[in-house]
Parts: sequence; C-alpha cells; structure tokens
Amino acid sequence: MILTVTLNAALDITYHLRRLRLLESNRVDAVAARAGGKGINVSRVLHNLGHETVVTGLAGGRTGHALRHELAAAGLRDELVTIEGETRRTVAVVDESRSDTTILLERGPVVTAAAWAQFLHRYDRLLPRAAAVVLAGSLPDGLSNDAYAVLIRRARTHRVPVVLDADGDALRAGVGEAPAVVKPNAAELEAASGSSDPHSGAAALRAAGAQAVVTSLGPDGLIACSPQGSWRARPPQALSGNPTGAGDAAVAALALGLVAGVSWPAMLVEAVALSAAAVAAPLAGDFDPTVYRRLQETVTVEPVATCPADVASDAPNAAAATQP
Amino acid sequence: MILTVTLNAALDITYHLRRLRLLESNRVDAVAARAGGKGINVSRVLHNLGHETVVTGLAGGRTGHALRHELAAAGLRDELVTIEGETRRTVAVVDESRSDTTILLERGPVVTAAAWAQFLHRYDRLLPRAAAVVLAGSLPDGLSNDAYAVLIRRARTHRVPVVLDADGDALRAGVGEAPAVVKPNAAELEAASGSSDPHSGAAALRAAGAQAVVTSLGPDGLIACSPQGSWRARPPQALSGNPTGAGDAAVAALALGLVAGVSWPAMLVEAVALSAAAVAAPLAGDFDPTVYRRLQETVTVEPVATCPADVASDAPNAAAATQP
Repeated sequence: MILTVTLNAALDITYHLRRLRLLESNRVDAVAARAGGKGINVSRVLHNLGHETVVTGLAGGRTGHALRHELAAAGLRDELVTIEGETRRTVAVVDESRSDTTILLERGPVVTAAAWAQFLHRYDRLLPRAAAVVLAGSLPDGLSNDAYAVLIRRARTHRVPVVLDADGDALRAGVGEAPAVVKPNAAELEAASGSSDPHSGAAALRAAGAQAVVTSLGPDGLIACSPQGSWRARPPQALSGNPTGAGDAAVAALALGLVAGVSWPAMLVEAVALSAAAVAAPLAGDFDPTVYRRLQETVTVEPVATCPADVASDAPNAAAATQP
Repeated sequence: MILTVTLNAALDITYHLRRLRLLESNRVDAVAARAGGKGINVSRVLHNLGHETVVTGLAGGRTGHALRHELAAAGLRDELVTIEGETRRTVAVVDESRSDTTILLERGPVVTAAAWAQFLHRYDRLLPRAAAVVLAGSLPDGLSNDAYAVLIRRARTHRVPVVLDADGDALRAGVGEAPAVVKPNAAELEAASGSSDPHSGAAALRAAGAQAVVTSLGPDGLIACSPQGSWRARPPQALSGNPTGAGDAAVAALALGLVAGVSWPAMLVEAVALSAAAVAAPLAGDFDPTVYRRLQETVTVEPVATCPADVASDAPNAAAATQP
C-alpha cells in the first residue's frame, strides 16, 4: 500500500453561487464538504485507480470529526492521529458569473510535542507495510521545519521510497534527507533553489540531496531531472477546468511509478495524463477517466539534456527504489 | 421560562482577515464558530441577563452536532429536534481594512412532514412550562408559510403570549393568529403592510391581527403601536458596531416585558438599551453591560399619536398577557 501523510488536513467546503458580492449577504446555491489536504487528495486518486492506500496525519475537534466521517464515506482507510486542536476548514467560493474562485484558508491547529510523538509512533507502525510514502502539503503550526526530514529518515530505515510535495523551509529541510522524488511547482522550485530556470533549479535540489526532481509547469506539463536523465512531458493541448488537485494527481502517479519500478518516461506519461484528467474534474482528488485514457495515448515525452545526470550518481536509483 | 423557536438554526462562522481579496487565496487570521439563528440569539441574551430560557427548533447532520455542542458550552438548554438534513452554516468574513463584512448563507435543509410533526410534539410538550414564546427567523424549505401561524395558535391554547420576528409570507400568515407582538424592521414592515410609513404600516398589521407592532429603525430606535397607545423610543446617540443581533436583543427585551407585565414605555427603554448594547458587542447574542446600564438611564420614550389605539381594541392587552 501507499501511505500518504497529511499533517495539516482540512475540511474543504465549496460554495457555488451566481456572483459573489463583497460586503453583502450572498445566498449560496450549492454546498459540498470534503476531506482535504494534499496527502488526502493523493490517496483519493490512488483509491479511485484501485490501488491500496492509507491516510495518516493529524485531525482534531468537530471539524476533524466531520473530515473523518467524509473519509469513511469515500472508502479511504483512516489512520489519522487525533489531536486536541481543531482541524482547519477551507472555504472555496466559486463565482459562476466569472468562473473563478475566492478561497478562505483557516490557519489550523497548533500541534503539541506530545501529539507529534504520538504521530511518529503511528507512522513507525505503518511504515513496514508501505511500498512508498507520500509527504504532502504545509506543516501546521507547532511543528519544526525539519518534520518532513524526520519522516524521510524513518522511511529510509525501512527502505521505503518517499515522494515529497512541500514548499519553502519544509522542502529545503526535506531535500537533505534524499527523498526519492520531490515535486515542486515552478514557483516552489524557484523559492527553494534560488534559480528561476527550472533545469538549474532542479539540479540545485539534486545537489542538495533529492534523488529526482519533478517540476510541474501547470498546463505545460512536467520536467523531470533524475539520475537516469532528464525528460520533458507535455499534454497534447492545455485543458481548462479546476487546477486544484492536479499536482496531487501527478504525485499519485509518481508514487505508483516508484512502486511499480517503471521507466521515467512511462511514469511521466501517467503523471501528465492523471494531472490533466484531474483538471477536467470539478473536485480535488477526482479525475475524468475518459480524459485520463485519452492522454495516456497522446502525452509526449522527450529527453532533455539540461539537467546533469551525474550530479547525484551515487544516490540510489529512484525509479528502482521499490518495495516488494 | 421563555421558549425560543429557531426552525432554521445555523452554525455561524466568523472569519477575521485584514483584507478580503476576490478571486484569490485569503489566509484567515481568526475564526469563531457559534450556534446561531435569531431564536438562539434571543435565548443567549436572556441567558446572559440571568433569565431561564429553552432553545427549540430543528438541527441535523454534522453541522447540527457542532451547533448543539456550542449551545451546551454556552450553557443554553437545548430542546432542538434532530432532523435528517444538514443544518446550514453561515460564514461572515470581516474585512478589517474596510470594517465591513461579506456574508455567505447556506440554504439549509429541507424539512420533511415527519420532522415537522415531531417538532410539534416537542413544542406542545414545552409550551405548558413557557411564560412566553419567541418565534424568530426564516422558515426552512419544506415548511409552509403558515408554520408560525400554527405555532401561535397552539401557544394561544396554553394562554402563552408570542413575540413573532419574521419576514414576508411567514410574517403575514403569523399576524392573522393575533401574536402579542410582532417586531419587523422598517423594510420588513413595508414588505408585509405595503406601506412605506411605519405608523400606517403598523396600523395595517394590527388591523390584520397583531396585538402590537414594534418596528425597529436601526440606530434610530423603535416605534411601538399597541392597544395602549403608541410610543417612539430613541437612544441618546447612534452607536457604531456590529448591528447583527441588535434586533434579537430587542426581541428578548419585549419577551421579558410581556412576562413581567411592565408598561410599554418601560419595555421600550429596555428594548432600545439592550439593542444598543448588542451593537456595542462583537457577536450576535452578546451585549456590552456598561452600555446597557448607561442606556437604561438615557433612552427617551415619547408618546406619538399616529397609530390609532382603537383599531384592535377588542384584542387582549399585550402588555398584560402574561403568565404566572
């Protein structure tokens, strides 16, 4: 099974209304509430593809209760650790006259040292059964920036490859523990590497420890930089829709590729196809199966030479770092 | 005790942030969640004043659960009937740069005939112990416009006076069952009576059955039209703050006045003082006790002659329609 970690889980509430008017009372036409957070979205994609996955992380309070209820309803295996603080809500207000969204993000709970210790205990219990681990999303208040680094180190002692989808200091600290793949978007890569060029940015993260770097470029696809070489993967055309969750779908494909030990080009085709299929579905974690199948046939992958393949040649082969 | 009925209860969520930006991701600085709906706000004011009150109405789902948890935490006696649908949330987004608020209102559940029958059973059980009933707020989908009329009729069989704070068709239908007091605001009065003059509008509602009409004029105070005569009550000056809940505080004072059998001028002083004290407090159902005490001494009440006292002279005396 693939274990996903969501330390700052959320109840994602979506409001649809004809037009959001500032400083007025707005009647909401339709409401949806879902368990959210990047790791949970990744598990949802894996589950929808028929793969075994377990959700862990932290949840608390009434909102945590509602989130876990929704996870159960979706058939996702819940190994979240209960904390004292209140899980955050996010409210996405979809304005249909503008086809655009205003998002309100609650801050989330402050995680205590005791809760973190309890989580580590649960994580250590789950790791031996994991074929891969996905660490995704922001760190809640109370955790230090090296939280992901700690989790990557523990996964390594079980020889479990890690896909890390993080930002800022959490990404920089995590990279030092040699995760199998990190998946920044272009802005996150620039912030973490200091380079605005995605090729040299990826090279910098590999030099800092990451075995492979897959950078998502939104509608333009992905660039991968690995010990086996570099590739650029693109969809046949840009799709319009809801980009929320597109990165999570790509992460799900990368985790599956690591576990199956497929080639980098095959893994990237899956990542772009699933990502585009997620853009075509209204909610994060969902994807359009027709778009997915069509893109599996039409995504193009070409080798690029810009990311030096030998920088981390002594690191383990990312694509081959699979588990039985 | 005073029984309040909230048929479309809500979990009121308040977000404070520096500036709300449309079509962007906004980080929320502070979050509060509270049981809401007009009747619940009235009970909160009564409870804070040290009076016995019971909350009834309808609540369901995870949001209903959170609402009831918050009611219990506030020490309010909960006789809500559990329904299958999901209680609505409201989200008030306070933009601190503009000191103004954008509100998102979920629609709420559709109430079934079975749930309404169950509610009537509960209401009939509570009525014999009630000294007054407050019917407040909108009707949820599934209930007919005469829902308040039915509740007023049942209260009358127990000789329990009713304060009705409703709008539109629910107000028009309720007025026909001769509630002791109806409390529209100026816009609601105009919509229900067809008259833009608050005096002739009130006379029309009395002619339609209401024993007394108290119209709230926002910062300008109240106008009362009763079988004992008409009065205008005003605060010494307009207060700035959060007007949400000011009408509910006025309703609480009117219900208390009915129960105590005080004179109309005394009742109106309390209603204006509590209302202004509610404006000075940040959340609906709270009030500033210092402002309340100060206004109790400084509210002015003067008789006015515009609302004919004899229109409904055969109706029972509202102020005297008290219970032991």
